[in-house]
Amino acid sequence: MGSPSTLLLEEVQLATWAQSLTQSPLRDLLATAVRPDILSFALGMPAADLFPARDYAEAVAYVLATDPQALQYGLPCQSLKAHIVSLMELRGVRCRPEQIFLTSGAQHAMSLLVHLLLDPGGQVLMEETTYDGLPTVIKPFKPEILTVRTGREDGIDTEDIENLLMKGARPAFIYTIPTGHNPLGNTISRENQQRLIELARRYRVPILEDDAYGHLYYDGQGASPLRALDDQWVFYVGSFSKILAPALRIGWVVVSDELSEKLSVVKHASDMDVASLAQRATAAFLDAGLMSEHLAMLRRVNQTRRDAMLDALDEHFPREAHWNKPAGGIFIWLELPRELDAVALLKVAVEVEKVAFVPGRAFCMPGRTHANHCLRLNFSNCTPARIKEGIARLGRVVREACA
Amino acid sequence: MGSPSTLLLEEVQLATWAQSLTQSPLRDLLATAVRPDILSFALGMPAADLFPARDYAEAVAYVLATDPQALQYGLPCQSLKAHIVSLMELRGVRCRPEQIFLTSGAQHAMSLLVHLLLDPGGQVLMEETTYDGLPTVIKPFKPEILTVRTGREDGIDTEDIENLLMKGARPAFIYTIPTGHNPLGNTISRENQQRLIELARRYRVPILEDDAYGHLYYDGQGASPLRALDDQWVFYVGSFSKILAPALRIGWVVVSDELSEKLSVVKHASDMDVASLAQRATAAFLDAGLMSEHLAMLRRVNQTRRDAMLDALDEHFPREAHWNKPAGGIFIWLELPRELDAVALLKVAVEVEKVAFVPGRAFCMPGRTHANHCLRLNFSNCTPARIKEGIARLGRVVREACA
Repeated sequence: MGSPSTLLLEEVQLATWAQSLTQSPLRDLLATAVRPDILSFALGMPAADLFPARDYAEAVAYVLATDPQALQYGLPCQSLKAHIVSLMELRGVRCRPEQIFLTSGAQHAMSLLVHLLLDPGGQVLMEETTYDGLPTVIKPFKPEILTVRTGREDGIDTEDIENLLMKGARPAFIYTIPTGHNPLGNTISRENQQRLIELARRYRVPILEDDAYGHLYYDGQGASPLRALDDQWVFYVGSFSKILAPALRIGWVVVSDELSEKLSVVKHASDMDVASLAQRATAAFLDAGLMSEHLAMLRRVNQTRRDAMLDALDEHFPREAHWNKPAGGIFIWLELPRELDAVALLKVAVEVEKVAFVPGRAFCMPGRTHANHCLRLNFSNCTPARIKEGIARLGRVVREACA
Repeated sequence: MGSPSTLLLEEVQLATWAQSLTQSPLRDLLATAVRPDILSFALGMPAADLFPARDYAEAVAYVLATDPQALQYGLPCQSLKAHIVSLMELRGVRCRPEQIFLTSGAQHAMSLLVHLLLDPGGQVLMEETTYDGLPTVIKPFKPEILTVRTGREDGIDTEDIENLLMKGARPAFIYTIPTGHNPLGNTISRENQQRLIELARRYRVPILEDDAYGHLYYDGQGASPLRALDDQWVFYVGSFSKILAPALRIGWVVVSDELSEKLSVVKHASDMDVASLAQRATAAFLDAGLMSEHLAMLRRVNQTRRDAMLDALDEHFPREAHWNKPAGGIFIWLELPRELDAVALLKVAVEVEKVAFVPGRAFCMPGRTHANHCLRLNFSNCTPARIKEGIARLGRVVREACA
């Protein structure tokens, strides 16, 4: 017999899709990986000590002291949109404030776009190994999910896409993370970008471009996003979470003026489409003109951390392990021998060596096994010294498993 | 031939429900009613000069100076949940922090609950005159909407509800605003509360209780919410928008522990279920213990404004007009002679007298005409002097129309 509260839940009739709802594995990790005794490369967190906390506090204080409407209902913050136009320019994208749509982070942006584009039971095309946020968003629509491979050097496999489209697939959109891929860490090649855009145009399929890591590029200028090549078929998603701070809960979409208006209706239904204090304070923070310096600092520090992790991997990992050198983003993707199971490895790593990562299968559709021997390492949230220590510990676990 | 941007929109295939999306009339009003030359009783805004801006700025500064994780990803703010338990106690509701679910405002709370409870094409039961936020949320589900009347003295018509349920209606939920109703301004009677709860239990239909105005009661102790009578069938929605500040974007739901967990999965898909800086700062603000004093001040000031509006209506409005004396909330509902059209009246009011309100039909389903001669006046966002001035102006428009 169940407890009283279990009975309660059974009595209330939930919507069909919600009856089997369970927590995502990543969210459970969020709870365990913050244990103070664990050295964690698991979560995609920016480094808290790099947040511009003092400058942001000043921006909030300034807004609250000077704008009597700062805490009031109001239209989405226009000056923030203007600042985002400048940020997009840094990524090689030209757009107007009317094409910027403000959201509560990248996940919210994806949710709104999915509601705008996807019919129940419709098709979605995505990489077979990808950020689990998008599958979470589309799940209630019970979509048909079509997956393609991702090339280690050139990004999403456009031949796979073309094959699917030629066979008649007509997805509501193609979801991809072209720059600083999560979890794969790679960046799409220029040539492949062109092929992807051509396919989108020819088959009239929108691309949902997740560029949350776009400003975090290393060893050069960084690839410009797909949106720089096409302003009709590319729906761009950006976010302040990785380049300013996640707790601000501010992301944005770049679309056409009309779609921006449609999005505001969808957002109004979701959580009112009004300016938050965070929007106003972030605009004030950006007014001070410190952002490009802040971005340069983030790139410098993250590159140092990436290199510390690459060096430590060279030193402590067996030859059976393979990994990439990411040109952007905050993740390194590791492939171990096929017979190893990264979930079993994680248990040992946490229990014996107090070090954590995310097993590859967290980024695959249920039942898919192609990444069971892989794992994702985040390098943005630890100092180089901690990275060396953690990779040494993890190396012991991996060498033991490979022996 | 369309402009290039019109062609663009036609080419992108939107989800079926999104193809006919248009802005809600209330959102358009938000844009016009902020015109500085308009004296507006239109929007449901709290008074900006009553926001505790300085204390809130101190709370933000304190959090950013003392908590290195204040801007980081993190679990929804536990200390804020504890404070909300205390706020619920003030409303006569006993609950635990595990039953509090944090959202980005009341609209977001309703959206999440609707996603949890409503299947596409399902039934929803609501008042025939009600806040348009809920219809906006349920629209994509193409629901069958069942409506009931609202009694001027005792609130939602439980006889109407019983008739529908006896005839076989099985709505996914009943939506109601029992205290300080928007737009009607009335509050449910104790007896009617009991009948409503009995019906919910007998027919196993959850009640979605919107209590955004619950702490704003006048002339006494205030009615406790439905949630105080039943913790199984009542899903309670609260918000800081009307009692602290809208731009914080913080609301909450009170449900069972298990449903709270389900909601966190739904929210994770919608916009990540993590703590915002606003959650942490609001918790710090509440730590200072100023909230019950702040609520008392809001009740005192709003009661004065309500009385100023009631006095002015007595003085300036013709005998053909009827209105209520709200015991809670921030709205007065006016009924004019049946032959008058409030939308036509609004045009004259804005153009000739520079004064605004919301026509009654904004709170009815499309095609329904029962409130075409009614209008909603907000009294929380103007000083008594401005209220007197505005009602005098509006009185001229109404007297002219009645003549």
